[in-house]
Amino acid sequence: MTSIDLNADLGEGFGRWRLTDDEQLLSVVTSANVACGFHAGDASTMRRVCGLAAERGVTIGAQVSYRDLAGFGRRAMDVPPAELAAEVAYQIGALEVFARAAGARVAYVKPHGALYNRVVHDEEQAAAVVDGVLLADAALPVLGLPGSRLLARAEQAGLPAVTEAFADRAYTDEGTLVPRGREGAVVSDPETVVERSVELARSGAVTSHSGARIAVRARSLCLHGDTPGAVELARQVRARLAAAGVTVAAFA
Amino acid sequence: MTSIDLNADLGEGFGRWRLTDDEQLLSVVTSANVACGFHAGDASTMRRVCGLAAERGVTIGAQVSYRDLAGFGRRAMDVPPAELAAEVAYQIGALEVFARAAGARVAYVKPHGALYNRVVHDEEQAAAVVDGVLLADAALPVLGLPGSRLLARAEQAGLPAVTEAFADRAYTDEGTLVPRGREGAVVSDPETVVERSVELARSGAVTSHSGARIAVRARSLCLHGDTPGAVELARQVRARLAAAGVTVAAFA
Amino acid sequence: MTSIDLNADLGEGFGRWRLTDDEQLLSVVTSANVACGFHAGDASTMRRVCGLAAERGVTIGAQVSYRDLAGFGRRAMDVPPAELAAEVAYQIGALEVFARAAGARVAYVKPHGALYNRVVHDEEQAAAVVDGVLLADAALPVLGLPGSRLLARAEQAGLPAVTEAFADRAYTDEGTLVPRGREGAVVSDPETVVERSVELARSGAVTSHSGARIAVRARSLCLHGDTPGAVELARQVRARLAAAGVTVAAFA
Amino acid sequence: MTSIDLNADLGEGFGRWRLTDDEQLLSVVTSANVACGFHAGDASTMRRVCGLAAERGVTIGAQVSYRDLAGFGRRAMDVPPAELAAEVAYQIGALEVFARAAGARVAYVKPHGALYNRVVHDEEQAAAVVDGVLLADAALPVLGLPGSRLLARAEQAGLPAVTEAFADRAYTDEGTLVPRGREGAVVSDPETVVERSVELARSGAVTSHSGARIAVRARSLCLHGDTPGAVELARQVRARLAAAGVTVAAFA
Repeated sequence: MTSIDLNADLGEGFGRWRLTDDEQLLSVVTSANVACGFHAGDASTMRRVCGLAAERGVTIGAQVSYRDLAGFGRRAMDVPPAELAAEVAYQIGALEVFARAAGARVAYVKPHGALYNRVVHDEEQAAAVVDGVLLADAALPVLGLPGSRLLARAEQAGLPAVTEAFADRAYTDEGTLVPRGREGAVVSDPETVVERSVELARSGAVTSHSGARIAVRARSLCLHGDTPGAVELARQVRARLAAAGVTVAAFA
Repeated sequence: MTSIDLNADLGEGFGRWRLTDDEQLLSVVTSANVACGFHAGDASTMRRVCGLAAERGVTIGAQVSYRDLAGFGRRAMDVPPAELAAEVAYQIGALEVFARAAGARVAYVKPHGALYNRVVHDEEQAAAVVDGVLLADAALPVLGLPGSRLLARAEQAGLPAVTEAFADRAYTDEGTLVPRGREGAVVSDPETVVERSVELARSGAVTSHSGARIAVRARSLCLHGDTPGAVELARQVRARLAAAGVTVAAFA
Repeated sequence: MTSIDLNADLGEGFGRWRLTDDEQLLSVVTSANVACGFHAGDASTMRRVCGLAAERGVTIGAQVSYRDLAGFGRRAMDVPPAELAAEVAYQIGALEVFARAAGARVAYVKPHGALYNRVVHDEEQAAAVVDGVLLADAALPVLGLPGSRLLARAEQAGLPAVTEAFADRAYTDEGTLVPRGREGAVVSDPETVVERSVELARSGAVTSHSGARIAVRARSLCLHGDTPGAVELARQVRARLAAAGVTVAAFA
Repeated sequence: MTSIDLNADLGEGFGRWRLTDDEQLLSVVTSANVACGFHAGDASTMRRVCGLAAERGVTIGAQVSYRDLAGFGRRAMDVPPAELAAEVAYQIGALEVFARAAGARVAYVKPHGALYNRVVHDEEQAAAVVDGVLLADAALPVLGLPGSRLLARAEQAGLPAVTEAFADRAYTDEGTLVPRGREGAVVSDPETVVERSVELARSGAVTSHSGARIAVRARSLCLHGDTPGAVELARQVRARLAAAGVTVAAFA
């Protein structure tokens, strides 16, 4: 029987500001990428989200980022590898306190924003992120894009490498994401997103930008939580996956 | 045989800036209060200091602070208790990663600067700091001023409460510190500091501001590391304690 | 003919986060308290809000704060006076660039959050805020609570002191605000807020918490922009003031 | 008669941390690149440095940077142009307050660290920095590397473009700097630095890395202030320039 994980970015407020509807999303996803304070996420929010996640049996992951609150971690930064590794470890450790206090643990790591994109191709930063994960825990799974340098490095280091796909993003014929900003890069029609989710989970394939059917093997689907209608769309994805006989369960 | 711990604030640089001579101080003290990023201390520095401390058998403690890099944690803040507890736990968790990576662990918690002073009297913030420690570890010792609300709260919560004294600060007849800013509040003559250190360690007593001999029972002596001559003075204190038959050893 | 100013806090997002509906509020208020980056407000937001304000003839004021993004400036801080004065001046200067680029200027200063509350009673910090204003501009009006130390100090220093009132806050018989947290401190019924606005503007009086009619002379009414329905309520206040023959116009 | 400006980075401490010996350097240089709070420099330091600079007739420039205290502005960042322009303007405005309060004004802008290096080649960020300068003041000189995109863009926009040279850095035969990290990139022998300073000022030429004599026309020499012996070296450079008949005077 086919099984898929649903992950989403959570706890992405900061102090007075909120972004994601954490409470609602935690009733849909199976894995929570919790912001750790570098692009978003203050200590109180981290504690609250970990508590809710543990209560509902949602797996907790550390969503690590460049240190850039003003840019929400979306501005690529040339951070020297040793600094980057230490910053990644710092974030994981900070989250671990709240995961443990809630009776859970940090079960995986996923880079955020510009760091996520950078470690698709950047060998040095990919290695640095893996070094940071290893500092924190030598057996922690890493969640990322299939074919990324990050996952290659994670595997080399003996860390479980977990692939994810995006039902709301267009793919090239080579199986990479059509860059944001290009026409059609984002799939906005909810029904299409739902259908692509089922297709990705059931057949490990999706229709590319050019109309070709391509293989995209992913152990997890990433749902976005910061747009209007995000929660409702996430619910539909989960319901339709279940209806299609797909087990929705955390990978970790 | 009498035994005393020597603690000092370490890792209090940030990014490009350095403050304490961590390398030298780690060859003198038995307990390192490592800054955790809120008033000072970046991830790379925390990693480096934990590595050196572990190498030399120095006990690692989390020096937790208000979130105030611009003020170096020296400006009292009315942080709501739940926020403060979460911020304390966050800092301990972040440090724990580097302590563990170095083969050690965070063995105690000591508040820094304005937070240290505030929890002497402020019941609410003292309780919040203890709540933060409990979130991280239900058995972590807390280092602070004898008679402080912090230590009282720690004991009530079942945490080991460890007292410290300051050989370079004047004491009132009641055994509290003469506030900074008052005449004679700081003892600057090195020889006097050394003598008071030995007196505090051997007889649990010190000469007060008025000349009276008062009891100041402390399990640890706090040495300051951010002044010129600090390392040399620390070395003398340690040598003279040894010469006086006092065992210098970590409390934890 | 009676005239009143309507002020609101604007530009209180930060990076990815939004809080206030700046665009809509700028079509209602006559004075915009623009966040300057210390509790909220990044450079891009400041630029945008100043541009919109200038376009619509809304007066621009600097909403200065403690340096505390994580706490949204709502945590009182013991900032030494010289530091506080410099921080106030820094914020005014930063905003002035965008006001001038939009063809306008910073026309007044209003403290935010915990600083606003603190300078009601704290002589030292009130003086420091005034010193900061003087560093920036020796003729800049200061907006605050009637009877506050801030306004007293501003007047002593030769700065125009401008009073404001809150239609959505309960007043004591002495004309001070009922502290938040006490029952009935906030007036939430929109119609009551509208009526109190008109009463404050027309007769310089309001019904106190105990039911007494008390004098509250204010040159400006503060409208809140960060609650659901805030924009609609602001519009009603403005419309009803106009209907009651009150001229709504900036004080500066 | 030949004239040269001497500029140095000043005010590069933050809160408790100091880096440069501002007091001493201000008795040597003719132009002070004052940090504005984004990579270093708090409001109190900015005020103090502006006061000293004005007292001694040293010209004040805004040393603008990426928003990166943890990295001291030395990590290149992909900041979107509109954000970067606004951030540059913000920094200039903040400094302007303190320059004016001291009876002076911000007389030029110089990017710092990674931003300085980036705008040598990056057309988009160079244009954004110029846009930021224009927001603040349509006639403000920009200080940078000869041949940089920054100076080209500044000239196109009608801003005075001022060139600088580095006596302590090796030059390629093409007149660009040998990248840091390469062997011989930094000239560390004080006497050689002094001689190169005089050569640069008097003949607009310098000996390249390969031994060739190349033209490097610069209106200003950049002295470094954050190394041991920096102040003494700066004094020698100034003395030897004077002895060689070169007038040392601010360009602005």
